Amino acid sequence: MAHFVVREIDRADPAVMAALRHAGVATVHEAAGRTGLLGPGIRPVQDGTRIAGPAVTVSCPPGDNLMVHAAVEMVAPGDVLVVTTTSRSTDGMVGELIATSLAHRGCAGLVIDAGVRDVADLRAMGFPVWSRAVHAQGTVKAGPGSVNVPVVAAGQIVRPGDIVVADDDGVLALPIALGEAVAAAAAQRLATEEAKRQTLADGTLGVDLYGLRPLLAKLGVEYVDRLP
Amino acid sequence: MAHFVVREIDRADPAVMAALRHAGVATVHEAAGRTGLLGPGIRPVQDGTRIAGPAVTVSCPPGDNLMVHAAVEMVAPGDVLVVTTTSRSTDGMVGELIATSLAHRGCAGLVIDAGVRDVADLRAMGFPVWSRAVHAQGTVKAGPGSVNVPVVAAGQIVRPGDIVVADDDGVLALPIALGEAVAAAAAQRLATEEAKRQTLADGTLGVDLYGLRPLLAKLGVEYVDRLP
Amino acid sequence: MAHFVVREIDRADPAVMAALRHAGVATVHEAAGRTGLLGPGIRPVQDGTRIAGPAVTVSCPPGDNLMVHAAVEMVAPGDVLVVTTTSRSTDGMVGELIATSLAHRGCAGLVIDAGVRDVADLRAMGFPVWSRAVHAQGTVKAGPGSVNVPVVAAGQIVRPGDIVVADDDGVLALPIALGEAVAAAAAQRLATEEAKRQTLADGTLGVDLYGLRPLLAKLGVEYVDRLP
Amino acid sequence: MAHFVVREIDRADPAVMAALRHAGVATVHEAAGRTGLLGPGIRPVQDGTRIAGPAVTVSCPPGDNLMVHAAVEMVAPGDVLVVTTTSRSTDGMVGELIATSLAHRGCAGLVIDAGVRDVADLRAMGFPVWSRAVHAQGTVKAGPGSVNVPVVAAGQIVRPGDIVVADDDGVLALPIALGEAVAAAAAQRLATEEAKRQTLADGTLGVDLYGLRPLLAKLGVEYVDRLP
Amino acid sequence: MAHFVVREIDRADPAVMAALRHAGVATVHEAAGRTGLLGPGIRPVQDGTRIAGPAVTVSCPPGDNLMVHAAVEMVAPGDVLVVTTTSRSTDGMVGELIATSLAHRGCAGLVIDAGVRDVADLRAMGFPVWSRAVHAQGTVKAGPGSVNVPVVAAGQIVRPGDIVVADDDGVLALPIALGEAVAAAAAQRLATEEAKRQTLADGTLGVDLYGLRPLLAKLGVEYVDRLP
Amino acid sequence: MAHFVVREIDRADPAVMAALRHAGVATVHEAAGRTGLLGPGIRPVQDGTRIAGPAVTVSCPPGDNLMVHAAVEMVAPGDVLVVTTTSRSTDGMVGELIATSLAHRGCAGLVIDAGVRDVADLRAMGFPVWSRAVHAQGTVKAGPGSVNVPVVAAGQIVRPGDIVVADDDGVLALPIALGEAVAAAAAQRLATEEAKRQTLADGTLGVDLYGLRPLLAKLGVEYVDRLP
Repeated sequence: MAHFVVREIDRADPAVMAALRHAGVATVHEAAGRTGLLGPGIRPVQDGTRIAGPAVTVSCPPGDNLMVHAAVEMVAPGDVLVVTTTSRSTDGMVGELIATSLAHRGCAGLVIDAGVRDVADLRAMGFPVWSRAVHAQGTVKAGPGSVNVPVVAAGQIVRPGDIVVADDDGVLALPIALGEAVAAAAAQRLATEEAKRQTLADGTLGVDLYGLRPLLAKLGVEYVDRLP
Repeated sequence: MAHFVVREIDRADPAVMAALRHAGVATVHEAAGRTGLLGPGIRPVQDGTRIAGPAVTVSCPPGDNLMVHAAVEMVAPGDVLVVTTTSRSTDGMVGELIATSLAHRGCAGLVIDAGVRDVADLRAMGFPVWSRAVHAQGTVKAGPGSVNVPVVAAGQIVRPGDIVVADDDGVLALPIALGEAVAAAAAQRLATEEAKRQTLADGTLGVDLYGLRPLLAKLGVEYVDRLP
Repeated sequence: MAHFVVREIDRADPAVMAALRHAGVATVHEAAGRTGLLGPGIRPVQDGTRIAGPAVTVSCPPGDNLMVHAAVEMVAPGDVLVVTTTSRSTDGMVGELIATSLAHRGCAGLVIDAGVRDVADLRAMGFPVWSRAVHAQGTVKAGPGSVNVPVVAAGQIVRPGDIVVADDDGVLALPIALGEAVAAAAAQRLATEEAKRQTLADGTLGVDLYGLRPLLAKLGVEYVDRLP
Repeated sequence: MAHFVVREIDRADPAVMAALRHAGVATVHEAAGRTGLLGPGIRPVQDGTRIAGPAVTVSCPPGDNLMVHAAVEMVAPGDVLVVTTTSRSTDGMVGELIATSLAHRGCAGLVIDAGVRDVADLRAMGFPVWSRAVHAQGTVKAGPGSVNVPVVAAGQIVRPGDIVVADDDGVLALPIALGEAVAAAAAQRLATEEAKRQTLADGTLGVDLYGLRPLLAKLGVEYVDRLP
Repeated sequence: MAHFVVREIDRADPAVMAALRHAGVATVHEAAGRTGLLGPGIRPVQDGTRIAGPAVTVSCPPGDNLMVHAAVEMVAPGDVLVVTTTSRSTDGMVGELIATSLAHRGCAGLVIDAGVRDVADLRAMGFPVWSRAVHAQGTVKAGPGSVNVPVVAAGQIVRPGDIVVADDDGVLALPIALGEAVAAAAAQRLATEEAKRQTLADGTLGVDLYGLRPLLAKLGVEYVDRLP
Repeated sequence: MAHFVVREIDRADPAVMAALRHAGVATVHEAAGRTGLLGPGIRPVQDGTRIAGPAVTVSCPPGDNLMVHAAVEMVAPGDVLVVTTTSRSTDGMVGELIATSLAHRGCAGLVIDAGVRDVADLRAMGFPVWSRAVHAQGTVKAGPGSVNVPVVAAGQIVRPGDIVVADDDGVLALPIALGEAVAAAAAQRLATEEAKRQTLADGTLGVDLYGLRPLLAKLGVEYVDRLP
């Protein structure tokens, strides 16, 4: 089994990524036809942060962060590091020191399907992290893995260069090829949602706004004053 | 199998609900004979909020929020929307748009045994939510369910109109018929607890305050200076 | 089966504990040869707090806090109460009243492999807690257990008097006998880490700082521009 | 909070229950409009057993089987004992001795949202059990609870007298009032399924048998030879 | 978002698949450089069965088996159906009727990252299944998805046509392109393991057979008669 | 941090262990004052096997079975190997080859708080295993650990030489010093239980046999014909 560190990845148009960041995970997920979402087990370490950037992916043995060190060198400004393990682990693979190195390279943030540590420092540094766990458990630097190969994080395929969007709602990965169309759809969605929000805030009901009453009737849902 | 949207529910006396809100979940749980508590898997999306109000209940298929839309129309000012699914799901069934609609109707908050999304917006709006998960995963509006029928949320029966109390400790549901007596018991408990708190703050030990030393002796618990 | 409340425990040198508190959980865990860490299921109820102190340990039946009351009497200023149950439980065994009593005795904080309640009050009091769950579920005072015997919390042995260190990263327990050496190693580590942090912040890569390139080569990790 | 042992429960017509037993959990669940199913966390201790009978329900404190003993007296031949706890527990609340007592009374089986022990003996006795866990952990006989009140087991309301059906697929509870209609629907379903089975075994596809091709087209599902 | 049913997949050489089936999951996993393994949450419904065949993959909405019906038509003799959902679900998406249809087409077995039902019938039919759950919960036929696109099952990418190997140890997916080399490596491994087994059965220790004593010494592992 | 392989452990009297094996886990757990039980997450790989023997304990890094190989050499006939990892892992640390080696040495069985693989072979060999998971995931032989030091398995302290009892109900560890007294108590318990079983089989109720009616009355449990 060969292990690779792949130096070059494609990166999406920065304007596209900025638009996706602006739209946020939930809107992009909708605009992308409800694809690309990582599972709900990956949660932000901080509140109120929203990022978008190209994925630099890492596949590590459990409890071993050697390949994370190798990956740092591949990170360009704005990239998002996406770390996975070959079997499930919550060990603290990344802490303040690696985050310092990543911040120096302009890394936009870390998404890790494992644990992190030094979270008080990470928050103080303002380095954004989404992780499965917080655990001080140390790791070794011993086993081989790969950088910039397709990985699975929280049940979702993430390919190198995929546009990663992350905020308080979670994390999403989008193929570069879909970026422009999804950004356009997301912008349109934001506009539509703003209109809907105004309509709903004014008191129109969703059942009317979305025309759901016929569907409810067709499904046999009966309106009654009291339970029969 | 019939599905119903029930329009009318009984609601408890607002003064009773205000008293229960003031007492908070832990005290009401005790005053109610330790009944009505939802499981610990339902957690607040925000910190420091306490609500109490009548339950408008919703039963949905997993990943389908059609019935939530139908339920919004049944929400009166001060009501708490309680959303459940017929099989376990963490999909994000409620987001900012539905919350806007709920807020317009004066909804006191949302309790959902599933996921929510747009949590940054929900926090910014000040709309209180207790949920099992945060997940951007979108849902369909396709399948039938019911509004204002008895449901099970986090292992607890919640009947339409039940007084729902929720704060940082979790969520509780109380039958209307018990409201007044429990509110009285809770008020008394608050007074007693204030006295106990003062006594404990002054240094009296719980083993003395509660007279536990004879029980410890009876149970064969031995006091020793060092382990034998 | 005998149950004991052991009155006397050994306590580490306060200066040693202060040094360990200053170093924090992740650094102490490393300095201690990666031992003593509790599992990631135990999380802080508050953010930004760091404590260190001798463990007063408690073993309770599930859903029964009688022995917690017995343990309060054994707490000296600076001690950390460590509560466990004989089978897994998330019931809220400790709330504001016990915390008031513990605070009066100068307790440094609570670590509990079970649930707590009144968390809004606990945060307002500034009483630090690390727990497996937040749940209002009340407990009884009925069954025997022990105070200051060895216990297992989140998969980790904690002996009475062990130095417990806890912060946003989690919780660690260290035998007194190792305290001084670990504190010295931790201090040295802090200095080294500060130097490393500076080096990494200046742009040196971890693969170079730690000399990992030969290892990567030896493990057969190939650097390529594009995936073959 | 009052605790009751209710002596009398309604019981469904034995012929109805026999018909439901014959149909099995999955078919009854469908015939009942997909209601009444307990969550998948409750699994059979044995393979190949199918039962149906009236529920004698028990609500216990966690780790306390006093009320199970009280419940045994209420068990009539053919009844199914349904045991729940007020907070989540996997302690072994029922073992060979209680099972012997239940078997003497003609109990059809045990459904328990907690743990059991002596499973080798239970299997040897041929006493059917569905449980959340197998754990030897002993329990006390100390705290109050109720027999024959509505309970929640694995997220499902079970009322005293409800018809409980259990087999290798899991467990289901059905209100007596629905029994006859559901048994009739289940019998019809069995006949229809036998016809469908034959049709499918002969090679007709489900997409044709159920007429799904137009729906697939309407949903925009494209048939292609290779991925575009 | 487009949804596709892809009619044609590549399939590996039957002799290669037979060799991989003979080797079994654990050996193939090793021969493939420890890649391709699905997570341990997917377990066999039966004991003692071993299969290998090309993957026909399905991506469904949670609780909706419409696309499974569409997938059946694409199954050729010897294929393995691999079913996934876009968000986590344990609903019983496949039962006896679909299994009858699959068996008619010569399907080698089912791997499903969700639930199945009618397990007594599935076992009686001898139709092999690996699933995340057993649950009678019914599903709808309402939402779009895809057949024969890359999916993620239990954290593992499975591409259409991948060679799926499954036995009592779990499930593995292998790209066709690797099949022949891995089958050769697996055959060699079987021979080597047989030799090792004989050596170990004769009393040679693994530490000697694998030459681990120098490594233990180098790692600082000390042999002592008693703990210092 | 020093790592040790400790060569010598104390072992209990074989007659005592035979008596404990005869009594089984649930009875020994009771006879030992309800101590020593491992959590319910560790389950037997086979049905119907009961063992008892001295613990040879192993502490490994996650995903690394080097120390298991070192431990095999320390296993004497009748010993039980108890394997743990320093952070949670389900990787398959032990398979058929190590089991062959263990069987050659007369090992009574394996208890492992991690995964195993080759379970079809393990069952065919008749080598008894209790594990947290079945997973083919391979491990490395790279990191240091210890043999015959105190470990924590499924939340329970296991000391080298502890008498490990395991059967279909799970696993228990008992200090040697308690063995004789517990074996005596267990034997007595078996006799008492046989008498109780007979009494219960003859129709006497547990509430009468254990004299629970006064307790029920004292706890305020009311007997009523119908719910008030």
